[in-house]
Amino acid sequence: MNQDRRDRLRDAAITVLSEAGGRGLTHRAVDAAADVPPGTAKNYFPTRDALLRAVAGRCLEQYRALADRLAGPGPGPADRAALAAVLAGLLRDTAGAGRPRMVAYLELQTEATRRPWLAELLDPIATADFAAFGHLLGAAGLPAGPQHARALTLALHGAVLHLLAGAPATLAAAGLDDLDAFTRGVLDRVCPGPHEETP
Amino acid sequence: MNQDRRDRLRDAAITVLSEAGGRGLTHRAVDAAADVPPGTAKNYFPTRDALLRAVAGRCLEQYRALADRLAGPGPGPADRAALAAVLAGLLRDTAGAGRPRMVAYLELQTEATRRPWLAELLDPIATADFAAFGHLLGAAGLPAGPQHARALTLALHGAVLHLLAGAPATLAAAGLDDLDAFTRGVLDRVCPGPHEETP
Repeated sequence: MNQDRRDRLRDAAITVLSEAGGRGLTHRAVDAAADVPPGTAKNYFPTRDALLRAVAGRCLEQYRALADRLAGPGPGPADRAALAAVLAGLLRDTAGAGRPRMVAYLELQTEATRRPWLAELLDPIATADFAAFGHLLGAAGLPAGPQHARALTLALHGAVLHLLAGAPATLAAAGLDDLDAFTRGVLDRVCPGPHEETP
Repeated sequence: MNQDRRDRLRDAAITVLSEAGGRGLTHRAVDAAADVPPGTAKNYFPTRDALLRAVAGRCLEQYRALADRLAGPGPGPADRAALAAVLAGLLRDTAGAGRPRMVAYLELQTEATRRPWLAELLDPIATADFAAFGHLLGAAGLPAGPQHARALTLALHGAVLHLLAGAPATLAAAGLDDLDAFTRGVLDRVCPGPHEETP
């Protein structure tokens, strides 16, 4: 099978799932979104479950690429301010360019409540997030015990839900109308302590 | 219109949405789940959007009743331990008896990413959560500024997602395999300080 075409179909499946929801995710809709001949999506991903699995895999690839790009080369953000900037970058992506991926992922999370195989597929992805944010806390020289990593990761996961809905009063109540202030504030709460001087 | 029958249809809509997802939410399925004659749901809630609106209203009523019951009469939980118990009760409900309501609500949140009218409907509900958890922090004698209320509320919202998926490694990474320890830990992180003596 052709990897370029496979990626194009997986991107199209993300588009369809985010724009039309679980109700709209059909092989025909994916073929149309990918601008390929009818039957192509079914050839690569024979069942609807295979389409969902393809979306999960593609979302994870894109999330990892984004996280690597934001964290930059080396051991990670060196201090509190740099970490706050990385986290704000992740949330900015959720509200911006990454929105289709994140809405599609929310659809997967919702379907996972009814499909044990999908919950199992997403399990290591969510688990890795707790480890990754714990690692970033440690790299930035902040307390990085399990409770710190949990409080930070869960707050970010909760924030994603509200950013995707984009309802203005909720965004204001959550402090998500200013993403830089938001991530600094979350780090202040989760890891209080004297702030580093930033230039 | 008959209020009992209306409530029965709204409960049935929650059941259908949680068990079959947005794809399965039809008037016919709601009639069947409510065990009423065909056409009844359409009579009370003429469109699919009206069904979604009915689910939102019923979820909110049930959530308020649960929160009132857990908080008890009076000004609310009097200390850190009592608040941790209330929060654990909320999360226990999400993972238990309240699961259909919460899965249906997650479906609404997911659909709200594509439907501005639904995002608008859910906006005051989510906003009220931030105020309510801030109020509970204050009642328990804990720091209750906006940042405290935000960190607590978002962590609980993130926790709900993972409780509904129920994936074991994620639950362990989030500390959600022990809900009492979890809520105590979140309060310790969000509002650190000397613990009150509990008998």
